[in-house]
This record gives sequence, C-alpha cells and structure tokens, in this order.
Amino acid sequence: MILRFKPIQFKNNKIIIIDQTRLPQKLEYRIIDNYQRLSLAIRRLELRGAPLIGVGAAFGIAMEMSKTKARTFDQLYTLFKRVKSELAATRPTAFNLFYALNRMEKVLLEHNEKRVEQIKKIITKEAENIYKEDLQISMKIGSYGSRLIQEGDTILTHCNAGGLATSGLGTALAVLFYAKSQKKKFRVIVDETRPLLQGARLTTWELEQYKIPHYLICDNMAAQIIKKEKVKKIIVGADRITKNGDAANKIGTYNLAILAKYHKIPFYIAAPSTTFDLSLKNGSLIPIEERHKDEIILMGDKKIAHNRVRTFNPAFDVTPQKLISGFITEYGILKPPFLFNFQKLS
Amino acid sequence: MILRFKPIQFKNNKIIIIDQTRLPQKLEYRIIDNYQRLSLAIRRLELRGAPLIGVGAAFGIAMEMSKTKARTFDQLYTLFKRVKSELAATRPTAFNLFYALNRMEKVLLEHNEKRVEQIKKIITKEAENIYKEDLQISMKIGSYGSRLIQEGDTILTHCNAGGLATSGLGTALAVLFYAKSQKKKFRVIVDETRPLLQGARLTTWELEQYKIPHYLICDNMAAQIIKKEKVKKIIVGADRITKNGDAANKIGTYNLAILAKYHKIPFYIAAPSTTFDLSLKNGSLIPIEERHKDEIILMGDKKIAHNRVRTFNPAFDVTPQKLISGFITEYGILKPPFLFNFQKLS
Repeated sequence: MILRFKPIQFKNNKIIIIDQTRLPQKLEYRIIDNYQRLSLAIRRLELRGAPLIGVGAAFGIAMEMSKTKARTFDQLYTLFKRVKSELAATRPTAFNLFYALNRMEKVLLEHNEKRVEQIKKIITKEAENIYKEDLQISMKIGSYGSRLIQEGDTILTHCNAGGLATSGLGTALAVLFYAKSQKKKFRVIVDETRPLLQGARLTTWELEQYKIPHYLICDNMAAQIIKKEKVKKIIVGADRITKNGDAANKIGTYNLAILAKYHKIPFYIAAPSTTFDLSLKNGSLIPIEERHKDEIILMGDKKIAHNRVRTFNPAFDVTPQKLISGFITEYGILKPPFLFNFQKLS
Repeated sequence: MILRFKPIQFKNNKIIIIDQTRLPQKLEYRIIDNYQRLSLAIRRLELRGAPLIGVGAAFGIAMEMSKTKARTFDQLYTLFKRVKSELAATRPTAFNLFYALNRMEKVLLEHNEKRVEQIKKIITKEAENIYKEDLQISMKIGSYGSRLIQEGDTILTHCNAGGLATSGLGTALAVLFYAKSQKKKFRVIVDETRPLLQGARLTTWELEQYKIPHYLICDNMAAQIIKKEKVKKIIVGADRITKNGDAANKIGTYNLAILAKYHKIPFYIAAPSTTFDLSLKNGSLIPIEERHKDEIILMGDKKIAHNRVRTFNPAFDVTPQKLISGFITEYGILKPPFLFNFQKLS
C-alpha cells in the first residue's frame, strides 16, 4: 500500500499538518510549533479524525517536552500536565486523544528517575511509536476488512475515516484502499456529512487519489440510494467504542445503522484498538460534543436561516451495539457477542 | 387563521410570486407575465411545493388564455396545449401540477361551444377556484391535523410543507399553525433539507412568523434528535400519493419514515386530495425527478468536492405505505387500510 499523502509529520520538533479545512480546494500545510496552536487546529478541525487527533496530541506533548528549558522532572511534569489538560479539552468524544495522552503520561512517569535530556528522547520516541503503530494498525484493518468486499459491491460510507483521519491510510477507507490494491471492482457512495462536509470534501478527494469509483450524495438520500442502488454494506469509522459495543461516531452514523437494519444489510465499524474505551460500560456514558450553531447556519458568509433560529448541533451520535454487525480491528473482525470478543483487545 | 404572507397572487392578468430562492434573506416578489417565465420559476424553485405548483400552473393557463388574440376555440386550444405541455415538463413528480392542468383542460373542453371571450372568463374563474379551494383545504387539513398535536409535543418536519408550498397556509405546517391558534404549546424540529435547504430557509422562517418554538438540525441528526429530544411524531407533506398509499415527497422522507418505525413514533403525511394520484397502483410508478449535481456541489460559488465527482441527486423518494400511520386530508385523517379508506377521495 502506497500512502498518497501525509496528514501529519513531525520534523525538527515541529508538527506539519495538512489543513483539512482547506481541502479539496487547496492542499495546504501548516507548521505548528506550540501546543496552543495545536489545540486550535484540533478545535477548528484543521486536524481531525479520532486516530489522527491521538497522534497529533502525542506529537504535541513531544514537541513541548523537547523544547522546554525545564531542568528537573518535576518542572517537566508540571509542564506536561498543563499541555495535557489543554489538549484533553479540545474534543471530548474522541477516545484516541485520551489514549495517547495517558500513554505519554505513563511513559513519562515510568522514567521519572532519568535525566531530563534522556526523558525528552524517550518521550519523542514514544510519540513516534504511536504514529507508526497507527499506520501499521491501518494496514491490518485494511487487510482484514478487505475480505468483506465482494466483486461488484456498492458500499456506503459516512464522514471521513480515511488517511486524513489517521497517520495516513485510514480505518473504513483503508478497507477500500486495500480491496482496490487487490484489484477488486466496487463503487462507493459517500454521504456529504453535514454540517462540515467531511464526506464531500475529504472522502471523495481520497477516493479520487486511489481511483476508486464513487458517488456523492446528501445525507438524507441514504435510504433511497441504499434501496435503489442496491448498497451491499455500510462501513464507517468511530470516535469511541464502549465495553458493550456501543459506538460513538460522526453525527448521522446512528441514522445509517437503522437504515442498514431496515434494509437488511450489514453495518460495520472499522476502528483501531486505541478507539476502544473499555472503562465505559455503555454508550450512554460517552460525552458528546455540542458545537456552535454557525456551523449549520453559515454557508460562506451567507445565512441559511433567519437570525433568531436555534439549533441542535451534536457532533456525534451513539450507535447501539445491537445495530452493529462487527468491528474491523487490527486483531481481525470482532463479531457479537462483543462483551466476550473484546477480550482480545485488552 | 390569519395568513402571514401571500406566496401567489393573480392580478391584472399577471402572476405575482414570492421568489422563494431569496428567502430568508429577502422577501422579494416577482411579476410573471408569460408562461415561459413561469416555467423557469417552477424549474428554479422560485415557486415550489406541490399544491402551489398546481395553483401556479392554473394561473399560468388563465394568464395565457386571457391575453391571447385567438379568435376561435381551436386557436385557443392549440395555445392551451402548448402551454400545458411546457408547464407539465417542469416538475414530473408533483401530482398537483397535472391535477390542475387536467382540470383546466376539462373546463376548456366543456365550454368549446361558447364565445372565446366567455371562455376566457370561465378559465380565469376556474384558476381562481383552484387557488381558493387550496386555501380552504389547508384550513381543513390544519383543523383535522391539529387534533393530533398534544400539549408539550415535540414534532419533527422535513422540507417545507407550509404556506410557501400552497395558496398560503400549508399542509404539514397548517396542522402546526392551527394547533398554535388553539394555544397549544409544542416545539418543532426542522430538518434543514439538503441540497436546497427548504427546511432551513423556508420552514424556520414560517414558524418564526407564527411564533412557534423551533430548532433547526442537519438531516443526518434526525435519528439522534428523535431519541434524545423525545420527538413524539413526524409530520411531512407529499408530492404524489398512489392508490395503495405509497407517497413521494422531498428526498429524505423515506429515511424519516424508517426512523419513525424504529423509534415507534407515528409518521403522518398531510396532503390535499389534489395530491392523490389514484390512477397509479403504487409508488414504483411515480416518476422521480433527478436534478443537477451543482445543487449538491456548489455552495455559493465554492465547490464542496473535487471537480470530477459524480453524484446522485434525486429530488424525491417514495415512502412505502406500510411506514405511514395516516394521511391528514381535507376529508379527515385517513388510516390504513388505505386502499379502502381512499374511496372517500374519489
């Protein structure tokens, strides 16, 4: 598998990202050299996708730990906690963010006896490991998931669970990229994914890079298109999966899972083990980010509704486990009963 | 019930419409004095909503019949057929369009022995009757439907089935306006309704005129909001209803009907008898308009996807009768078995 672009790089102690808000018009890179700017990039969705947010946060910690003039472990740890708390507040739903921050903290604490310069190297190494592991995980998800793709399939996906949501290959889209590399022929229906249009802007752009035939639709067309175009399966990513198999993902996912059940087609979630929050019993415990109404109301500088309108704008929804056919992970495809089969992950 | 605005008027042999593409930013009127411009207005959705398209077409016929210099019935009928064929081609799905054109033709043919000047008056009168009847029907739909609205309800609607889709009061929204006039307290969730955002632009604007509390959401949020905000019923309009009870309506309606079934809440369609096409056995026979991909891809002059992207853009979908709890009509609320209960309509 060849990566067609690099959504994130860590060079000379700076984080280089593709500014995803500018796609597909422009492929622009941003150089980030402090954690406040990184937080802003995550909040603004310049950097987005649960696995990529995790990788970005790990690099953010490494960047700040490396450039500090702190001379003792305690000074280092004080700084760490400030950076962690700022980054942790950016997107409450994506579990990979907390996974990465907690993993960095654990490594830091494990080496509290070492010299500061040594710790800095260890921390940077750990962030790079998180990045590389995410890429390897994507490959495995792609490989396992591609077994589900049949010749002639029509597959529907939502939002962007591609290279731009990870270190570079993706989760749901990795499955498709892998199947394409095996010369399978299939086509993809892409939900535009209002309000921020990650499906229209990012997923169609990625599928075009890999020359996979695809059709863009508005989200409300999914039911009709599933029926008329004979969609065979739905595959999406996830932002947090709980112990019982409930899964938070981009708003609209729960809707699709209901449509899959009604039309009797399988509904898969592709996600790395780093998205699984086995400390939560079920999806009702996942914090759901509510975003600003301007995301819905403003199109460019034009308002699509009257000035006093109120909105609901949840960024995610939770799909109950009973609507999920399986999880495509780096450990294979986990099928129900999830409570039992998730044991492989811990 | 007081009308807050007039979507269409017929004065001095000209049709005056609200240009609905400019709402909510501007309340602008257009004066239409020929049928080619009327066709364009319907195609562009300056004038839209199945019942209003029917009324508009009737006025279009009246306008052309009145101003012609034709001196014989045959000349008049030749012109009629040209105007009818142009108007009939504008929107293939909306049945009210064909209802109105056929009714005008029938009246014309019935009076073929009369003098041309007399026929012109009869034709104009008939168009005015179609307009007035539509308004009366709206009142009755509102009155019958309002019985379904309970104190404290949360109701979800899609697209715009309001005053702007009819002679002035609406179908699904007439129910809400009527319930409001009875001092009932309830709130409304409004799907923005991509791609052309009739929910965001028109429905929230109408609800604001009538001071009914409302919340705008993106279409893909419906499942989550039905669950979280405890939506009690869904009420929408229709563009064509067939003999067995299948109903074509704005794309996204079928999706909502499936969500209603899953969440065990009733799903109602409010529509005048003029939307019922009892000549068609079922919904698979309804022609579905496919519209240009730019409606999806262009937001202002900005493209939301790469240049080579393909789309599906059906303007309507068909909801199967088994997902419909009842039809709110001017004859009351028709419940299953529809095949039997639709006898009242003919």
